Amino acid sequence: MLNEQTDSPAHRQGDPLDPDPALLDDDSVVALAETFRMLGDNTRVRILDVISRRERCVCDIARAVGMSESAVSHQLRLLRGQRLVRPRRSGRQVFYVLDDHHIVRLFAQGLEHVQENARSSRLRRAEPAAEQS
Amino acid sequence: MLNEQTDSPAHRQGDPLDPDPALLDDDSVVALAETFRMLGDNTRVRILDVISRRERCVCDIARAVGMSESAVSHQLRLLRGQRLVRPRRSGRQVFYVLDDHHIVRLFAQGLEHVQENARSSRLRRAEPAAEQS
Repeated sequence: MLNEQTDSPAHRQGDPLDPDPALLDDDSVVALAETFRMLGDNTRVRILDVISRRERCVCDIARAVGMSESAVSHQLRLLRGQRLVRPRRSGRQVFYVLDDHHIVRLFAQGLEHVQENARSSRLRRAEPAAEQS
Repeated sequence: MLNEQTDSPAHRQGDPLDPDPALLDDDSVVALAETFRMLGDNTRVRILDVISRRERCVCDIARAVGMSESAVSHQLRLLRGQRLVRPRRSGRQVFYVLDDHHIVRLFAQGLEHVQENARSSRLRRAEPAAEQS
C-alpha cells in the first residue's frame, strides 16, 4: 500500500535568492539527524568499534565492552532499528556486523576526524612547552 | 605544558580471550560519540547541508534554513567547538565551510545511508501493492 505512510518526494526548494540546488527534504534531515544521534552514545560507539573489526556474536561483544549480554542486545536492537548493524545467523549463533559500506566509512571518517583533532591539540599543547625548554 | 591535560595514549587492550587489536581508547570513544551527538540535531543537519554545497555567510545560512542569524550563529559556535565547521574571514564577512574532508565525507556517507534506507523502504511498501494490482 503505497500511501500508508507519507512517501513525499517533496524537496524544500532554495528560495529565489538562493542559487543552490534544492536543500535536503525534511524526511532526509530527520533521518540523518536520527542516524547521527543513534551513533552519539559512548556505549554504542564501543559496540560499533568492536564489530567494525570483524563480525562478532553478542557474547563476544558483551565481553569486549564489559557489559551484560542483555544490555548489549538492547543496544543492538536500537542500532538495527536505524540499520546501523546487521545480524547474520549461523546455526544457533547470531553474529553482528556494520550494516553496509556507508556505515563502515562513516565510522572510519568520524574516527579519523577525532584522532586528527587529538593530534593537533597535543601539538598545540606541546609547542609552548618546547619554547620554554 | 604537556601535562596540564591528560595526554594518555593508553589503549584499552582487548582481554586475553579477544584476538582483536586494541579497542579504541576512552578519549577517542568519548570524542567520537560527542561528534556524532553534535551532528544528531535537525537544525544542525540543515545548516551543514547548506554549507556542504559551498561556503556561506551567516545571513545566507539563516535565510536558507529559515532561522534568525543569532540562532544560526549559536549553532555555528557549537559546530566550531567540535571542529565540524570552519570560518573564513573575507573583509567584513565571515564565511563558513565544513571543517575538513573527513566531515564532508562523513556527512555524505550518512546521507547516502538514509537515502538508501528510504529507497528500500519505498520498494518494500510498493511490492505488496504491485502484487495486488
